[in-house]
Amino acid sequence: MSDKKQIYKPRPISGFPEWLPEFRAVEQRWMDHLRKVFESYGYCSIETPAVEELDVLAAKGEVDKEIYVLQRLHAEGTEKGDARLALHFDQTVPLARYVAQNFGSLAFPFKRYQMQKVWRGERPQLGRLREFYQCDIDVIGVDQLPLAFDAEMPSVIYEALMGLNIGRVQIRISNRKILLGLVDALGITDPVTVTRIVDKIEKIGPQSVADMLKKEVAMSGDAIDAVLQLASVKGDASALSRITPKNAAMEEGLSELTFVMNAVPKGSAIADLSIVRGLDYYTGTVYETALLDIPEFTGSVCSGGRYDDLAGSYINRHLPGVGISIGFTRLFDVLTHYGHIKPGPKTPTQILVVLPSEERRPHAAETASTLRKRGFNVELYHAPQNMKKQMEYANKKGIPLVWFPPFDDAGKHEVKDMTTGAQSPADPASFTIQS
Amino acid sequence: MSDKKQIYKPRPISGFPEWLPEFRAVEQRWMDHLRKVFESYGYCSIETPAVEELDVLAAKGEVDKEIYVLQRLHAEGTEKGDARLALHFDQTVPLARYVAQNFGSLAFPFKRYQMQKVWRGERPQLGRLREFYQCDIDVIGVDQLPLAFDAEMPSVIYEALMGLNIGRVQIRISNRKILLGLVDALGITDPVTVTRIVDKIEKIGPQSVADMLKKEVAMSGDAIDAVLQLASVKGDASALSRITPKNAAMEEGLSELTFVMNAVPKGSAIADLSIVRGLDYYTGTVYETALLDIPEFTGSVCSGGRYDDLAGSYINRHLPGVGISIGFTRLFDVLTHYGHIKPGPKTPTQILVVLPSEERRPHAAETASTLRKRGFNVELYHAPQNMKKQMEYANKKGIPLVWFPPFDDAGKHEVKDMTTGAQSPADPASFTIQS
Repeated sequence: MSDKKQIYKPRPISGFPEWLPEFRAVEQRWMDHLRKVFESYGYCSIETPAVEELDVLAAKGEVDKEIYVLQRLHAEGTEKGDARLALHFDQTVPLARYVAQNFGSLAFPFKRYQMQKVWRGERPQLGRLREFYQCDIDVIGVDQLPLAFDAEMPSVIYEALMGLNIGRVQIRISNRKILLGLVDALGITDPVTVTRIVDKIEKIGPQSVADMLKKEVAMSGDAIDAVLQLASVKGDASALSRITPKNAAMEEGLSELTFVMNAVPKGSAIADLSIVRGLDYYTGTVYETALLDIPEFTGSVCSGGRYDDLAGSYINRHLPGVGISIGFTRLFDVLTHYGHIKPGPKTPTQILVVLPSEERRPHAAETASTLRKRGFNVELYHAPQNMKKQMEYANKKGIPLVWFPPFDDAGKHEVKDMTTGAQSPADPASFTIQS
Repeated sequence: MSDKKQIYKPRPISGFPEWLPEFRAVEQRWMDHLRKVFESYGYCSIETPAVEELDVLAAKGEVDKEIYVLQRLHAEGTEKGDARLALHFDQTVPLARYVAQNFGSLAFPFKRYQMQKVWRGERPQLGRLREFYQCDIDVIGVDQLPLAFDAEMPSVIYEALMGLNIGRVQIRISNRKILLGLVDALGITDPVTVTRIVDKIEKIGPQSVADMLKKEVAMSGDAIDAVLQLASVKGDASALSRITPKNAAMEEGLSELTFVMNAVPKGSAIADLSIVRGLDYYTGTVYETALLDIPEFTGSVCSGGRYDDLAGSYINRHLPGVGISIGFTRLFDVLTHYGHIKPGPKTPTQILVVLPSEERRPHAAETASTLRKRGFNVELYHAPQNMKKQMEYANKKGIPLVWFPPFDDAGKHEVKDMTTGAQSPADPASFTIQS
């Protein structure tokens, strides 16, 4: 028989990451941790389809060419009655659509988390992917939403990120009402451009921001000074005393920011008035998060804020919310690239039960089953090969314990610690792992 | 300010299911259970991108118009250097591609599970969806793979499905070598058509199968009788004694099936020679699974088998495997539809800590935090509203316990069981939930 089959050698698809089992194990542990923290604060899980109708995306006015549209292979155009579908590019539009669609069935304030892949047809580079997980929490109220939820976000996010063992985390918090209030007090009529420019301050520095404000908004030197002075305010709640409110909006923003800052866990967050977020979507509190010990990770690992109207495009109800989003895969990808992720085990197996002989298979299988019922992850070796071969398998997969069931009816159980080499008698019915 | 914004009322997308939080909670519990069982047998998790290159799918010769191809919105045709991408329609092709691509980095036999969404552009109906989860386990060997893994699958699947509380589960097992051996012994030259026809026996009955075998393969009455007699063999391992092997292939298949049947957990499985699976892909053991107590769920909830060559299209190595796949969302969808799924809680919150007053907020927050550190899922009520209002929130969300922190420095902690109405003193630092 000749073996002339065609081989198509597959290659990685740029921007669509996947991991070896030992890194996937870490990714899973991270996700489990985030989920546990989110649930410990009472956020429930939802999952929406990977796709939305193009009309739903368009209703939000956010359709651009980064969107992936689905097309059935060989299908002649769109089928009758089938809406055009596109992969979602974030979890905010799906949340808005979900809340509008299920409004009568949800209990408000609605606290939900969502950890799904999203897709964007961007040019891929390190940390900028075409398929990636986002991990979002949001709280949605009807007509109004207490500020207590703005104050809760930093606690959740701090606990979530600290548990990943990626060094010191710093949440940076501001309130857009303060800058917008100042802009209004200064008589500037184009607040959108001002916030867009101030948002660049960390990247381009205050001098360039001043130049842009002068050039693009024709601001006076005094006005520019006032804005830059505000943006320079950084520190704990007491730093906010440096701000003198010039109108009711500034006063409101300052009072809100003070409330939030007084509730954050010690050492987790600073007030930082240079944080404005680019999106006009946000109307009050805004968050960014820096990893202080991972200089390779530039930008914010976790951002969000307060918004006035989640789902106005889909339902005639006023639904204010506050939320924050972890750029999960971006974080994981960058940290993996720079060697900050210590790979986990190649297998979840904790104990390999050796197979002494074909005749002893039922007894060895029974041993494995007993250990499994006690909560251990257990493999029974698949063939009665020599012990060296069976131990090699445990070594290759990094299985920490090898279990020797009795080789005959008179024998005893023993267990070998593959790290220390120590071997000792053991009973499958009462065995525990020392931690 | 007028409120004349355009509303686009979203509607469910046919074939793309999503659940309310109380059903999502059950879906998550199911997934957690499956994952736990898979890991307890030493299967590691992998996750592949949602997409594959169209050329990868085409190399397997399985491209048809059910595939969803991605297209960037407004993109003028395919971009230079970008391969055409399509959503995966199963997890077998991605597994084959993954194993070929990472061959040097994996430890064999490679035991993996994979629980991801897949997409098929089929016409949706109950239990046939366009987006659905599959939960697969497979073991891949290099050059050869011991039969012990064929024998392990029923144990894993039985434990996996029994934990979902969906009544009695019956795994039905056969080995294609037996029927193919018989077909060969009978001198029939078109085994593919014979297996395709015998596969329909449960749906159309033996008489129709006989008619088709006569019409399509021109089989003699004796030959048809021999095939139907073989297909009628059902029962535990002892039933296999009714089969008289006519050649080496039948003998081999019979011996393999006996080995597998001798290893299955008591009461979990029967040998059923009418099971052949439609796909030629399978070369030995084949599995289907019936839910005996859910008549609404017709067909197999979990199927699979042994295959000779996983990744021959992508790598010049012989990689035999055995695997089985749970049609997760199909099962969940049908059971939900027929009311067999008891919805879970609307929230993971176990304890609502009430907020007595704005002044007591720091103390109440501290109470919530202490309980959270003890492993409970805890919400602090967001505003110092009257107690009735706060209790209503707990009722609406189905939160089982309401915690009253001291209303002043002299006060004591109390906890109220919302089911029984009983209220009693409690200490956040030592509180436990009686189960």
